[in-house]
Amino acid sequence: MLKEAVFKDIPVIKYEGAGSTNPFAFKHYNADEVVGDKPMKDHLRFAMSYWHTFTFGGTDPFGLPTMEREWDSIESPMELAKRRVIAAFEFMEKLGIEYFCFHDVDVAPEGKTLAESQRNLFEIVDLIEEKMEETGIKLLWGTTNAFSNRVFMHGAATSSNADVFARTAAQIKIAMDITKRLGGENYVLWGGREGYETLLNTNTELELDNLARLLRMVAAYKKEIGFTGQLLIEPKPKEPTKHQYDFDTATVLGFLRKYGLENEYKLNIEANHATLAGHTFQHELNMARINGALGSIDANQGDTLLGWDTDQFPTNVYDATLAMYEVLKQGGLAPGGLNFDAKVRRASFEAEDLFHAYIAGMDTFAKGLKVAHKLLEDGVLEDNIAKRYESYDSGIGKEIVNEQVGLNDLYEYALKNNDIKLSSGRQEMLEAIVNNYIYESK
Amino acid sequence: MLKEAVFKDIPVIKYEGAGSTNPFAFKHYNADEVVGDKPMKDHLRFAMSYWHTFTFGGTDPFGLPTMEREWDSIESPMELAKRRVIAAFEFMEKLGIEYFCFHDVDVAPEGKTLAESQRNLFEIVDLIEEKMEETGIKLLWGTTNAFSNRVFMHGAATSSNADVFARTAAQIKIAMDITKRLGGENYVLWGGREGYETLLNTNTELELDNLARLLRMVAAYKKEIGFTGQLLIEPKPKEPTKHQYDFDTATVLGFLRKYGLENEYKLNIEANHATLAGHTFQHELNMARINGALGSIDANQGDTLLGWDTDQFPTNVYDATLAMYEVLKQGGLAPGGLNFDAKVRRASFEAEDLFHAYIAGMDTFAKGLKVAHKLLEDGVLEDNIAKRYESYDSGIGKEIVNEQVGLNDLYEYALKNNDIKLSSGRQEMLEAIVNNYIYESK
Amino acid sequence: MLKEAVFKDIPVIKYEGAGSTNPFAFKHYNADEVVGDKPMKDHLRFAMSYWHTFTFGGTDPFGLPTMEREWDSIESPMELAKRRVIAAFEFMEKLGIEYFCFHDVDVAPEGKTLAESQRNLFEIVDLIEEKMEETGIKLLWGTTNAFSNRVFMHGAATSSNADVFARTAAQIKIAMDITKRLGGENYVLWGGREGYETLLNTNTELELDNLARLLRMVAAYKKEIGFTGQLLIEPKPKEPTKHQYDFDTATVLGFLRKYGLENEYKLNIEANHATLAGHTFQHELNMARINGALGSIDANQGDTLLGWDTDQFPTNVYDATLAMYEVLKQGGLAPGGLNFDAKVRRASFEAEDLFHAYIAGMDTFAKGLKVAHKLLEDGVLEDNIAKRYESYDSGIGKEIVNEQVGLNDLYEYALKNNDIKLSSGRQEMLEAIVNNYIYESK
Amino acid sequence: MLKEAVFKDIPVIKYEGAGSTNPFAFKHYNADEVVGDKPMKDHLRFAMSYWHTFTFGGTDPFGLPTMEREWDSIESPMELAKRRVIAAFEFMEKLGIEYFCFHDVDVAPEGKTLAESQRNLFEIVDLIEEKMEETGIKLLWGTTNAFSNRVFMHGAATSSNADVFARTAAQIKIAMDITKRLGGENYVLWGGREGYETLLNTNTELELDNLARLLRMVAAYKKEIGFTGQLLIEPKPKEPTKHQYDFDTATVLGFLRKYGLENEYKLNIEANHATLAGHTFQHELNMARINGALGSIDANQGDTLLGWDTDQFPTNVYDATLAMYEVLKQGGLAPGGLNFDAKVRRASFEAEDLFHAYIAGMDTFAKGLKVAHKLLEDGVLEDNIAKRYESYDSGIGKEIVNEQVGLNDLYEYALKNNDIKLSSGRQEMLEAIVNNYIYESK
Repeated sequence: MLKEAVFKDIPVIKYEGAGSTNPFAFKHYNADEVVGDKPMKDHLRFAMSYWHTFTFGGTDPFGLPTMEREWDSIESPMELAKRRVIAAFEFMEKLGIEYFCFHDVDVAPEGKTLAESQRNLFEIVDLIEEKMEETGIKLLWGTTNAFSNRVFMHGAATSSNADVFARTAAQIKIAMDITKRLGGENYVLWGGREGYETLLNTNTELELDNLARLLRMVAAYKKEIGFTGQLLIEPKPKEPTKHQYDFDTATVLGFLRKYGLENEYKLNIEANHATLAGHTFQHELNMARINGALGSIDANQGDTLLGWDTDQFPTNVYDATLAMYEVLKQGGLAPGGLNFDAKVRRASFEAEDLFHAYIAGMDTFAKGLKVAHKLLEDGVLEDNIAKRYESYDSGIGKEIVNEQVGLNDLYEYALKNNDIKLSSGRQEMLEAIVNNYIYESK
Repeated sequence: MLKEAVFKDIPVIKYEGAGSTNPFAFKHYNADEVVGDKPMKDHLRFAMSYWHTFTFGGTDPFGLPTMEREWDSIESPMELAKRRVIAAFEFMEKLGIEYFCFHDVDVAPEGKTLAESQRNLFEIVDLIEEKMEETGIKLLWGTTNAFSNRVFMHGAATSSNADVFARTAAQIKIAMDITKRLGGENYVLWGGREGYETLLNTNTELELDNLARLLRMVAAYKKEIGFTGQLLIEPKPKEPTKHQYDFDTATVLGFLRKYGLENEYKLNIEANHATLAGHTFQHELNMARINGALGSIDANQGDTLLGWDTDQFPTNVYDATLAMYEVLKQGGLAPGGLNFDAKVRRASFEAEDLFHAYIAGMDTFAKGLKVAHKLLEDGVLEDNIAKRYESYDSGIGKEIVNEQVGLNDLYEYALKNNDIKLSSGRQEMLEAIVNNYIYESK
Repeated sequence: MLKEAVFKDIPVIKYEGAGSTNPFAFKHYNADEVVGDKPMKDHLRFAMSYWHTFTFGGTDPFGLPTMEREWDSIESPMELAKRRVIAAFEFMEKLGIEYFCFHDVDVAPEGKTLAESQRNLFEIVDLIEEKMEETGIKLLWGTTNAFSNRVFMHGAATSSNADVFARTAAQIKIAMDITKRLGGENYVLWGGREGYETLLNTNTELELDNLARLLRMVAAYKKEIGFTGQLLIEPKPKEPTKHQYDFDTATVLGFLRKYGLENEYKLNIEANHATLAGHTFQHELNMARINGALGSIDANQGDTLLGWDTDQFPTNVYDATLAMYEVLKQGGLAPGGLNFDAKVRRASFEAEDLFHAYIAGMDTFAKGLKVAHKLLEDGVLEDNIAKRYESYDSGIGKEIVNEQVGLNDLYEYALKNNDIKLSSGRQEMLEAIVNNYIYESK
Repeated sequence: MLKEAVFKDIPVIKYEGAGSTNPFAFKHYNADEVVGDKPMKDHLRFAMSYWHTFTFGGTDPFGLPTMEREWDSIESPMELAKRRVIAAFEFMEKLGIEYFCFHDVDVAPEGKTLAESQRNLFEIVDLIEEKMEETGIKLLWGTTNAFSNRVFMHGAATSSNADVFARTAAQIKIAMDITKRLGGENYVLWGGREGYETLLNTNTELELDNLARLLRMVAAYKKEIGFTGQLLIEPKPKEPTKHQYDFDTATVLGFLRKYGLENEYKLNIEANHATLAGHTFQHELNMARINGALGSIDANQGDTLLGWDTDQFPTNVYDATLAMYEVLKQGGLAPGGLNFDAKVRRASFEAEDLFHAYIAGMDTFAKGLKVAHKLLEDGVLEDNIAKRYESYDSGIGKEIVNEQVGLNDLYEYALKNNDIKLSSGRQEMLEAIVNNYIYESK
């Protein structure tokens, strides 16, 4: 195995400020710059997604791989896996990224048996552990891939086949074990196959009950092994399945409550999954936050004119600002973080594109953080909201909030109150204010 | 007020069988024909929507009214309201529809004060009561319109203004009173303005808490007055608001559970609202059914290539079949029913179009009922499902279902079970079977 | 009729620069500031939409009017119409907007006959003409409304009824006459009802031929009366009709070419119509530009998570930047302009919201203009594009462009050329560059 | 190479009539039954898609292959290719399908050089030719795959790299040569990469001109080699690219007219591509038909609640009926046909699912043909349309159609004609009629 540098032509990426035209420099992300109560890096807790960054080959439903990588000629799957570990840590160090996230199959080749897969995985995890110690880079979250292998064609925990449920459970056990070993701060479940293709052959009731059974086992196993990280569920409405049970934040929260699991799991919210469900990114973050369930973020960007998960690098500063607004409102993301669940476009096939993409994403969120912080600091939105709802702070409003009145009381009140005074919602003015904060905040 | 016939040129609509080419006859709906355990009319419990049928004028966002009605020349709002009552009962009698649904403002003009509105409403309700006794026609459900009046611009129970909350509560009290008086079998809440236009000015947490507060008051008032009907919430994801809190079945169920209201409310599922939320009609019915929450149906049809609520009359037999399949699976809809929350296209402006539309809708659901019944009777789908999931009936599957195993047990099991046997989902074959039942069932 | 000020509490809006927090000031739009070769106002040619600004009442498909206006108590339709003219010119003067656009029915009430409508219209046009002379404000474009009246339920030029075609033609004649009289620089046709609701009753071939016949008559009439303005067609894919024939830019261009009309008409591109058709705003502008057909712009903003025409005020600086990029690439918009075909949200019901909305929109496009100008001046995108396609400047590429080779030649060439060298598309880097120009350009 | 039967457990599929419950029988498709002027098979001209049926492995964006096939153990790519040819012809014979369609890469493995690819292809084509002679099965159309290989990442004819244009041209030459040799009745161009990912790096003008240049070369080459088949373009709006230039029928027709190519190409309309573009399948067929450009059909089905190309087997009889209605209206499809551009769901992984899927699709279109024929024979829709537009047959309508009047004439006419008589569009009644024809026609 080669241990020398993989990205030898790429410099360490440094902050050069907004005026810089150097494509290999940050213009907004200045890791140690304090924003409010802590450095930017502690607000943002950026993480690298192993799969999109180091195993995605550039395929799409109509296209073969495109990516050109230093390891293209390595034939041994295990040697390839190790070379990617070396590359991944070099990559994170050059960008100053302190966290990463991975699925089991991202880092080690699946074997012919589960035992062989586990052996492969443990061998690579040894190397990962070594690199983590060497670099100080940490694991934001681990997970298992229970969707790519053909055995998951009918679901994983919601498969019509009990053996597949067992296989899923086994994979999770192994993935939780290594997540714990590596000091992972969270463990994520994305149910890519937990859903249905057609109701004509599906027992949704049994499938949902089984999904809950798995989640109970996971919560129990967490206690059993003393894993102290946060358990996270990642909503997505569809793709690959026609309907995915973890449709969106509200659906997942309702499911958890039905089965009494609401204290065990929080949510990992992804921007592109939000828009596929018909919501804004901020909506999903907000719904999670007000339910005390905002755990972590998969930071990417979809294309609302396309109907699939494009997983683009986030470059829209509006979305980043409003996302960071929700994060700041809940007092931070930890132990969660901002994982770039994003892939370079398949025509961005050169290694340097990986750097351009992460720089773009990190700068976008750094800018978003600064704007959101300023908006909150100045209270422009919050003050307006407080004033807008002030009728609930006294009089009949307070009685409503305190649940001291019923329909009859309010009927008597309303009979005498025919001339209700309303105020404008001022949406256009507020949008202009956000614009001005974006353009002007430094 | 004229009391003579309004639709004098239209015959009483009778069943003539599938071979008939008479546009004023049913081809499939034969009210008293027994399907399974009861007559078609008792399976279907068709209801007329007062608003779409008797007050909708044919406007759209770019167009003025188009409808030509017998009462076009009546200038007095109260005389107009009475004439419509006469027409509505004649209409239902000619079609053999035994139920209707209405909002307060559909039947009586709003006054300048709430008290005046109530007086108008009570006067018309007297006439409605008289016609109900005369004809035997019943009230499926009543409701209040808490979305059209400008006071609801920021929401009703979720308004930023407590006076609007009070007004909403008052309207509901009145509407529940008259629903009870008329023997209504259900009371519906559709939160057309319960949502937000922009998060920039919205306190979602307070708004959702307030929505729950209202629902608690409603449940309490139901007990207080001894109303024995079912309370129903009608999900819709958006339109008129950008985001509506009662987004879909899963969202509403989660909301009810959060606030401990899951035993008080069931759902009124609308086909077009389902597709606007990104779901099939059957999906929404299925989710409600397996949660014991399928209360009633708003039978209409959207256009999935258009992004708004087209509220078309249901003519797609696939959708009707799969909807009735879910209804039969739960043993019927009562005390709910099939309300045609559908409007004739604005270019179908003649009175006879109302009859064509209802005939089309009623025949479509009658056909759907017959196909669904035959599918269930023959067990073709159910037998396949039972077989598909049989691995959960014994062995490891049964242990999973009985929650006798955990991750470690399943890990041990999976380690020794590397060759999992899968079966095809047979989606195409099942779709062909449904087709054949549709074409062949009589 | 009152002639005194309508918006007496609102100041004249002035440029105060980016640092200003005065909501009644421009932060970016500085009318006379030169950008490149001319003042901002001549690049942008802002126009006020009469309908959204002065006749829209705040209705939506589920809601009654909300707007509070100074003229709410005027009962006479003609007096109301005149008061709105006074208000409109005062409004434009306060904002420094030099153009307006209107439909016939926006400014004058329809009469019971076409002749009466014409008389009403001519009376108001006298007043408009007077105010135009007094203020120097100009007419960007005029049009007729051939979609709201019920006679257009089946289409206007594509109605199944020849009398409706005639009525449409008559309305256009009148509207072109007044547009010419007022010195209008363009005349627009939006075919809101030119489409179909269902193919079951539609002869698309005749309808499209008739649409072309109308457009030929319009082009002939333009010459006949010596109208020197530009004729424009405004694409929209759907709403109000299920399918609108002028679906998008490509469809309209193809239609014009089929009927030999491509030299008579250009396009009026609307942002929200672009996204309803599945395109970005820039896409539609680009397609029009490269076909020499970009005539004018309806500047607004849709919500891509909603499926209807929300017609919001444009506040997204990405869209504005890329729109202005296309405008600058074609050397400007004149005789077209930027018409704010946008309405305040119905909850923004106070008169001052109109000002907030226009300020937001004007600042957004001013910012977009400055960013686009800088991007072009620095050539960052253009240089990259030139380099990216340089293989077509020489060798085999040049022969392809010059059409000197055929399949056989290229086959021979390709047989010997198996190792094709590709370069990254650099999408992420380019997106980061645009971001930096947006944040940094002043 | 094995030559014996591949699908030995599957019987020859025969017509057993609607009452049959045998899953391996046709219930509606009776090849030689005459409908109107010819046997069903000549109306329908069914074709097998080689790629979906014999090379698709069941992958999706998140999943590895699932399909189980008889040839899974064959390692040699050329032996595998030959085995698939044997299988394909056996498959078509068992189903009584008389046509097939293929891309070059479907039937033979790509080599390291174009020359090697060509050699592989020619070797397999020899075998295909032999099987065609043996079975009488014909080639509906051939094509080249200019989208999967990584060289097409930036486009094929619209690549930024001239060498890729050359490679595309070379592949087309080879594919046209073999299509001619095999007696193909059409040659198809699907521009899966002819579009853009981002306008930031794209010269749309050059790209579109280059696309036209390629199409000119293809038309010239057709004449040069004396290929007498029809050239076809297949519209698709997006996927894999963000925007595809051949967006829909109207866009392609406009493009062809711009470059004077409208007499050289017709269209291959796909159902799922129609809905991705926001149109119904019938809309696209209708637009092609009335422009004399309906060449052939890719018969499949999308899911309008999903935003990607699901390519499902067509089982919706409404869509099939309305599609066949358009086909019958234009007097048939020949030399085009109905190609099942459809794939079994990835969970339908057994070989017999291929049969279930084709039986479902063929029966659906057979049923659609019969319903459409009956609708036309009875003239129910056509008579209504004739009556609906009769005002254009005489009087002012006829003068409009004959272009004998202008705006002034119509203005004079309309001034005297204020009371326009309209008729209902009767949409609901027509939908009910179509339903009754579907349920009742045999």
